[in-house]
Amino acid sequence: MSASATRVGILGGGQLGQMLGLAAMPLGIECVFYDPAPDAPARIAGRHLAAAWDDSAALARFAESVDVVTFEFENVPAESLAFLAGIRPVHPGVRSLELTCDRIREKEFLRATGVPVQPFAPIGTRAELDLALAAVGPHGVLKTRSLGYDGKGQRVVRAASELEPAWNALGRTACIYEAFVPFDREVSIVATRALDGSAVVYPVVDNLHTQGILARSVAPAAIPPTIARDAENYARRVLDALGHVGTLALEMFVADGILIANEIAPRVHNSGHWTIHGARTSQFENHMRAVAGLPLGDAGMPEFAAMVNLVGGVPETAEILAIPGASAHLYGKAPRPGRKVGHIGIVAPSRETLLARLADAEHLARRVNRLA
Amino acid sequence: MSASATRVGILGGGQLGQMLGLAAMPLGIECVFYDPAPDAPARIAGRHLAAAWDDSAALARFAESVDVVTFEFENVPAESLAFLAGIRPVHPGVRSLELTCDRIREKEFLRATGVPVQPFAPIGTRAELDLALAAVGPHGVLKTRSLGYDGKGQRVVRAASELEPAWNALGRTACIYEAFVPFDREVSIVATRALDGSAVVYPVVDNLHTQGILARSVAPAAIPPTIARDAENYARRVLDALGHVGTLALEMFVADGILIANEIAPRVHNSGHWTIHGARTSQFENHMRAVAGLPLGDAGMPEFAAMVNLVGGVPETAEILAIPGASAHLYGKAPRPGRKVGHIGIVAPSRETLLARLADAEHLARRVNRLA
Repeated sequence: MSASATRVGILGGGQLGQMLGLAAMPLGIECVFYDPAPDAPARIAGRHLAAAWDDSAALARFAESVDVVTFEFENVPAESLAFLAGIRPVHPGVRSLELTCDRIREKEFLRATGVPVQPFAPIGTRAELDLALAAVGPHGVLKTRSLGYDGKGQRVVRAASELEPAWNALGRTACIYEAFVPFDREVSIVATRALDGSAVVYPVVDNLHTQGILARSVAPAAIPPTIARDAENYARRVLDALGHVGTLALEMFVADGILIANEIAPRVHNSGHWTIHGARTSQFENHMRAVAGLPLGDAGMPEFAAMVNLVGGVPETAEILAIPGASAHLYGKAPRPGRKVGHIGIVAPSRETLLARLADAEHLARRVNRLA
Repeated sequence: MSASATRVGILGGGQLGQMLGLAAMPLGIECVFYDPAPDAPARIAGRHLAAAWDDSAALARFAESVDVVTFEFENVPAESLAFLAGIRPVHPGVRSLELTCDRIREKEFLRATGVPVQPFAPIGTRAELDLALAAVGPHGVLKTRSLGYDGKGQRVVRAASELEPAWNALGRTACIYEAFVPFDREVSIVATRALDGSAVVYPVVDNLHTQGILARSVAPAAIPPTIARDAENYARRVLDALGHVGTLALEMFVADGILIANEIAPRVHNSGHWTIHGARTSQFENHMRAVAGLPLGDAGMPEFAAMVNLVGGVPETAEILAIPGASAHLYGKAPRPGRKVGHIGIVAPSRETLLARLADAEHLARRVNRLA
């Protein structure tokens, strides 16, 4: 058996990196975080190299100090990633990042992979506005092609006349115009693929977004088994088609009993935080196992689980932990409106109990959250 | 609601400290480890202050840098602890440490608390050898009164004539002579008491020792519910009688359907490592919650769990993780015979599956373990 990686370089040092680092330590894996911010939350869970994304000397030093490189932040400049890939293996592959950092290519990839997507069209010029309206219709969402997250860089369009103003508001930059999906539910599925191509898929979760930011996830989603099986199949297709190594999330809508894929996050994802206490192996541990070349762990869940985000503010830790089945995850970030600063994990032996505890956690979160 | 502690000083920086530190980070608690060893395993999970146990300037600096002090190592000099207690609250209390670092006082305490113990007698002088033989009988175990762990400082006595040679072998130091208990099982129970006096008790576990070192634990123990209830009652009595704040373990024998208490570990314990993946809240997290003044978490277990120690050697991480339901905990210690360097956690949805996985893990451990 060949030796697995024991030093993993992680691009990005936010809370996702912090949770990756915490999962890595028991495995005997040392993490090195590359993040320009001197107060990167992940610095407590490994070594921290604070340098700019385009500092090739620092990038080289970083790569040479580890066995393999991964990322928790997908807006790493493509050139930096290519540079690193010349020094050490980068998992997930550069392909996963390239295909998901451009919303047009991402949707084309999903469609080609056999995963249903809503109608969409690129908008890069004034002329394309009319073509897009014809293809997609007057009710849609205009998004920048790249660099969006947590609802940033998006505008809802409710009439043909609103499209150009929306494009103006986004700076007439390269965009994607997607048909609005009148969805019944927002769901996501998190899955991990190992270096040997084997994969594990977590149960589908129900998500709720508020002002474009994930507010809470509930696992497993209250959906028919046929839809859950479709979601798992889609996740496996995406993993295999990307040749992905590590964890990813596929966000989807359920509309009229059909899944419509919305986007891929080529990394551990907020809608998978419940796996820390709710699944037999967390999404973070499985990501570390995958990129280090180790066998994956069981993605099943013994009970019911949920997650509530703390955005822009945190309650007293004691208030969180007074909720039965609750765990606190505080990222050590200074609270600012719209900034994810922690989350509450909840487990329960029944769905009814889970929903009661979830209501308490959401009540607490609403009291402190400042979304904007 | 008063603010909970966010900086916790931990005396000792071994693997127990490391696991406490990992449990503390998501709670937003920063740990400072006091340990003379420059390569203390816990150093990766917080700040590390490397100084001698009797360095009062360093101890003062340590105490002043935190809100509360706890320990993961019970052989801290009593004077050092008293000194620290003059600067910051020490949890569990000094009483927990005083009563458990002397095996005679510990047994007297247990008896007084209504927890059954085997016959025992002190041996400090030549004259006490005969008194002890008369009280305890010719089949017993001679142990040093203090500073023993992992079977060190112990001699089995099988005939009256063996007692004095055994005492000689232990350097004619202050000892306790305990009647040998012809036990059916070795069990233990881990429990945590909060600052407000509330307590949670984990399920009883079955333990197996090899050459005095814990080899494996299985949870829950395959014992009748009446015995499990007795064990829980004893744990609660001990917690309350000590005024303990934090986690402790009570090791017991089951002999003829009766529990006989063997010893108290006034800290997180090796027989509770299964709680990391097997219980809804780990013994480490509950210890940190308790000493920080936070509400305790659910000590129940949704499935079945076990733990296998790695002593003196580690297999390839991939070999551990290839066992379904297995997690790896490697402490980052240089392997030496008799030294605990890691453990394998196992969870399973049924006892049968657990025992099959456990057999695989024990097979792996036996291949690499070097006990002496």
